[in-house]
Amino acid sequence: MNLHLIIGDKLYSSWSLRAALALELAGATYTEELIKLNQPDTRERILKHSPTGKVPLLKTEHGTIADSLAIAEYLVERFPEAELWPRDVASRAQARSACAQMHSGFFGLRGNLPFDLSRDAALSPMPPEAQADIERMLALWAECRAAVTEPGPFLFGRVSLADAFFAPIAVRLRTYRVALPAVDAAYVETIYQWPAFKAWQKAGLEEVVR
Amino acid sequence: MNLHLIIGDKLYSSWSLRAALALELAGATYTEELIKLNQPDTRERILKHSPTGKVPLLKTEHGTIADSLAIAEYLVERFPEAELWPRDVASRAQARSACAQMHSGFFGLRGNLPFDLSRDAALSPMPPEAQADIERMLALWAECRAAVTEPGPFLFGRVSLADAFFAPIAVRLRTYRVALPAVDAAYVETIYQWPAFKAWQKAGLEEVVR
Repeated sequence: MNLHLIIGDKLYSSWSLRAALALELAGATYTEELIKLNQPDTRERILKHSPTGKVPLLKTEHGTIADSLAIAEYLVERFPEAELWPRDVASRAQARSACAQMHSGFFGLRGNLPFDLSRDAALSPMPPEAQADIERMLALWAECRAAVTEPGPFLFGRVSLADAFFAPIAVRLRTYRVALPAVDAAYVETIYQWPAFKAWQKAGLEEVVR
Repeated sequence: MNLHLIIGDKLYSSWSLRAALALELAGATYTEELIKLNQPDTRERILKHSPTGKVPLLKTEHGTIADSLAIAEYLVERFPEAELWPRDVASRAQARSACAQMHSGFFGLRGNLPFDLSRDAALSPMPPEAQADIERMLALWAECRAAVTEPGPFLFGRVSLADAFFAPIAVRLRTYRVALPAVDAAYVETIYQWPAFKAWQKAGLEEVVR
């Protein structure tokens, strides 16, 4: 299987992180190509690969797949043995529901707390729409935990695509120093201890030095 | 299987239409509950069913599923015989990619050309961000057609979830009288002749009379 992932800066591209974590979860072998964002030639470089003009993109023997969620479902089909979603039907439905909500919403959080792995400072004052999204996010995580059927420290117990989709939220909560209930703080720590995440984080922080 | 779909006004709720078309494609038997949007008690009524405060919602024996895309993938699993996505792996990957792009984007089109089945008037002047989204949409449809492996007049030949996801775009293009190349005009007409869509449209237009 020939897989080539095109991403933005590891420091800034939260959607690229989701796709990379999904590939790691799948145990896929793939090559990676980083296109630096916010450069004069960024758009042109991405357009060479896809008319969407956005990252991530996964180039496969079945064409170029745009969008992290479509990439995730492609990997679910191609790597069934990896069991990327929770195994239980109801848990899986809730995991997909949570990821789809993340995918199409939470703009108050995404817009006001841009993803930056190197940040370590509170946002003050927190805009009300960001605060509302944070509260809704923690409620959504609680709904996910209520659907857990497999043991483990991740959102649905055993690690799954849901963690790939919510890892960038864990980053925002930590880097913007958002005060969290113990259960959510523990989940953020679980993400930060996840080897696949740590590898991405390390590479992202090295981008700053360059 | 006990399925209960909660939707907004058929006249206005484009995401509810997507979920309903997906259920029709699945051949599912389901009950329907309409919550009138933009009323003083709308939010409270939706919150009784789901903390998302949004429609559509599908209540199932596996919990309440929020979001049209998660509903779609749930139906894919529960009704495998309906073959809701294109059968070919590459076509299916492109269909998911297109629907995911719709799900998370095209805000210039969605914001400036709100969904209203009863509308029949051009928007003048067309805002540039809406025009750009329309052009990108037609290019996306062309990409889908290039991935067709099954005969038929729909986006991927045979009818699929992609048509459920793009039917509301066909509505916008027609109701805002957007001039279209012949191939796209033919696709819009295919949607308007789709019995499942016609039934929804009829019910939506009857909401105006009430």
